[in-house]
Amino acid sequence: MLPQAAIRDLQHVVGERAVLHRDQDLLLYEYDGSIDKGRPECVVFPRTTEDVVEIVRIAADYSLPLVGRGAGTGLSGGVIPTCGGVMIGFSRMNKILEIDLENECAVVQPGVVNLDITRAVQGRGYYYAPDPSSQKACTIGGNVAENAGGPHTLIYGVTTNHVLGIEAVLPDGTVLNAGGKEQDLPGYDLRGLLTGSEGTMALVTKVIVRLMRSPEAVETLLAIYERADDAASTVGELTDRAITPAAVEMLDGVMLRMVEEATRAGFPMDAEAVLLIELEGVREAVAEQLELVNSVCLECRAREVRVAKSADERALLWKGRKNAFGAVGRVSPTYYVQDGVVPRTRIADTLRHIYRVSERYGLTISNIFHAGDGNMHPIILFDPRSEDETRRTREAGEDILRYCIEVGGAITGEHGVGMEKNELMPLLFAEDSLEQMERLMRIFNPDGRLNPGKILPTGKGCLEIRPPAAPHKAVIW
Amino acid sequence: MLPQAAIRDLQHVVGERAVLHRDQDLLLYEYDGSIDKGRPECVVFPRTTEDVVEIVRIAADYSLPLVGRGAGTGLSGGVIPTCGGVMIGFSRMNKILEIDLENECAVVQPGVVNLDITRAVQGRGYYYAPDPSSQKACTIGGNVAENAGGPHTLIYGVTTNHVLGIEAVLPDGTVLNAGGKEQDLPGYDLRGLLTGSEGTMALVTKVIVRLMRSPEAVETLLAIYERADDAASTVGELTDRAITPAAVEMLDGVMLRMVEEATRAGFPMDAEAVLLIELEGVREAVAEQLELVNSVCLECRAREVRVAKSADERALLWKGRKNAFGAVGRVSPTYYVQDGVVPRTRIADTLRHIYRVSERYGLTISNIFHAGDGNMHPIILFDPRSEDETRRTREAGEDILRYCIEVGGAITGEHGVGMEKNELMPLLFAEDSLEQMERLMRIFNPDGRLNPGKILPTGKGCLEIRPPAAPHKAVIW
Repeated sequence: MLPQAAIRDLQHVVGERAVLHRDQDLLLYEYDGSIDKGRPECVVFPRTTEDVVEIVRIAADYSLPLVGRGAGTGLSGGVIPTCGGVMIGFSRMNKILEIDLENECAVVQPGVVNLDITRAVQGRGYYYAPDPSSQKACTIGGNVAENAGGPHTLIYGVTTNHVLGIEAVLPDGTVLNAGGKEQDLPGYDLRGLLTGSEGTMALVTKVIVRLMRSPEAVETLLAIYERADDAASTVGELTDRAITPAAVEMLDGVMLRMVEEATRAGFPMDAEAVLLIELEGVREAVAEQLELVNSVCLECRAREVRVAKSADERALLWKGRKNAFGAVGRVSPTYYVQDGVVPRTRIADTLRHIYRVSERYGLTISNIFHAGDGNMHPIILFDPRSEDETRRTREAGEDILRYCIEVGGAITGEHGVGMEKNELMPLLFAEDSLEQMERLMRIFNPDGRLNPGKILPTGKGCLEIRPPAAPHKAVIW
Repeated sequence: MLPQAAIRDLQHVVGERAVLHRDQDLLLYEYDGSIDKGRPECVVFPRTTEDVVEIVRIAADYSLPLVGRGAGTGLSGGVIPTCGGVMIGFSRMNKILEIDLENECAVVQPGVVNLDITRAVQGRGYYYAPDPSSQKACTIGGNVAENAGGPHTLIYGVTTNHVLGIEAVLPDGTVLNAGGKEQDLPGYDLRGLLTGSEGTMALVTKVIVRLMRSPEAVETLLAIYERADDAASTVGELTDRAITPAAVEMLDGVMLRMVEEATRAGFPMDAEAVLLIELEGVREAVAEQLELVNSVCLECRAREVRVAKSADERALLWKGRKNAFGAVGRVSPTYYVQDGVVPRTRIADTLRHIYRVSERYGLTISNIFHAGDGNMHPIILFDPRSEDETRRTREAGEDILRYCIEVGGAITGEHGVGMEKNELMPLLFAEDSLEQMERLMRIFNPDGRLNPGKILPTGKGCLEIRPPAAPHKAVIW
């Protein structure tokens, strides 16, 4: 429980209705899209940067941990309070402040929903490129914190490649500006450092995002395979032929059946894998690529290649992809999504390893992922009421990530490290590098109150961060 | 003068011939491509990372300033020792250690010449994209330090977009690894932070660079204008029409005449400006773009548009561009290149301001620059033997940069801040941001011995960095 005085101070800044502190209200804020849980002691909803500064100062006065929250769609527990404290919900800071097409950028508040930026500018031929599958719900602030990717990361890169500037509040209330409308400004790259720092360095209060021209032409193909190996080798073959599609998504048989049951998008129920391939660019180039990709798929033993003949057909194929997590939810209300990365040439091996893990741990695992990037998303179905199954799920997830590292990959492609994989960081980084990262974090977050227990394996314990009077409220499964 | 014992220790690590310490040898190392000067007290040439670690430890033992040096082609004084001390010359660390086409990258030592990477892989259809005009001489280590750009930055971005991983030595001898062959690794972005840190955080000893597929088709056009304004408005018009060429370079009349005198590349002597435009991509797309660009140039009142009909003709046009600095050197052995950035829509205004500055300060200024990026390179011709002319040159340069900031731009696009523009940083960044940058730098470089006096306006004085016994050897004009 927070001191009553702290709650009154917060209410004074944002008004009574913008501070939640009753248990039944806080319940909704104890989880994100991952499997960890932890309850904040209050949730505050600022409307302006000045509000955030005031909230941060109050948290400092009472030595309270602080965590920012966008839409709570994150998949690595980045937004889960591990030591209770104050959660800042950015849902009221959801204004697009400026659209500047001359400089091809927009200035937005952190609570703006990803897709709303594209909606605001698409009439004028522009869009915001990073497209996480949750883009109808997730917010730019969360995207920046986790350096989010999406299917089109293959061609356009992750969030950091689309953020030009950041305004952020440090845990002592300092407002920091990094970057700006111009690219590659002088000095140290604070903008790049803050992007992907998972809310452990600063609270982002404003973002300048790059807008891109919508492509002249788009084609979407669905290639259907009897064998998952053939789908995997198609990805390697495309690279060998120097073809870079805008997106190459793979769905395996288990996933296909769940998606088709849920969406009736026309996915085959009997295939071992499909590739959903999108091509973008100038009309003639896309037409030429379409023929090339079609023949590469067939050479790699695709049973059939379907090309979307209209915008509606394209939307239907993507609906299957973008709603895949919902489709899984129909079968199993709880699941655990992993986010390993492997070299493109090791996708087939990794899939085989995932199927072995599925057998060994006795768990259903479906796969849907950004194959072009080698960014795997095995989805492990489990029942959280079974302690044993939950334990096996965590172990299976870690087993898969260790394999990804073994074949030259990494433990996250786009979901972040959060509190889910921070203990695995030493598998990937030497002690010196981790120490340097910790020192960097401390520059911004000296007493570790900002989003404690994330990214790095060695965080201070909650008792060190806040006075012993305030009890530790986190409930970790 | 360094203590004899320090020189002996250094000789013990790299051999006697790899340590220069006599005045006549050091003369060559007191300048780069900018107009500042400062002499090191010795230059050491390591061959391995282990050598660098040893050298760094010796410098720490004797509290000596340290600066790394690639080819010395930098344009902001980044490599000039401001407090004497030890210079580490990377010219013997010039090996390409690995070419990994499966993962589309190469592992190289910092002394590898930029163009040599492309030479090593072009037979297999690959190249290294960032192409500073000095690419035949400049090294990857220097490129990483300054986050170098080039004509094709317009489409492919600057060096940081092409560096996947870095091995670097900290001033205490710690070897740090940041990034790797995979993109967007977990944790804080040390790789991005070190890139562009101008040698003030660490000495880069290994770089993993991204290799890209050579484009299928390339077309190069020369558009000739009676009025510079029309050339500038062409750049804006191309953006409006959503055409992104691979490069859009502009040369003004003064520059054209110098270049043509030197290269006989066929540039018109009587025009006020030309645009050199390159298109790259799939054959059909490039053919379509070529027609579009041609008509945009003519609509914007180009007097003539020439299209290179062969690889030889293309090479000749680029020879004019890439050897422009040499051409200036024939007319005036000393010149001062600025590196301001402005929004593309303000290029014409900025050019007019530069011509006003030229008149006001009584100096010849020629312009050659990356127009597509709004990255201006006014070149001020002056005689360094005249104190008055040198002073006016510096003032004219600063006047131009202040104008760039006024119209919403910045003080460097690709040359770095170095010791040339660090005092201008407060025009661009608030005090809080600069303080945060300084704190970040101190994490890597706690006593400021690594490349002192660069980037930030408030460096420690030399007397604070090293014991008063060792005299300050910098000769600043």
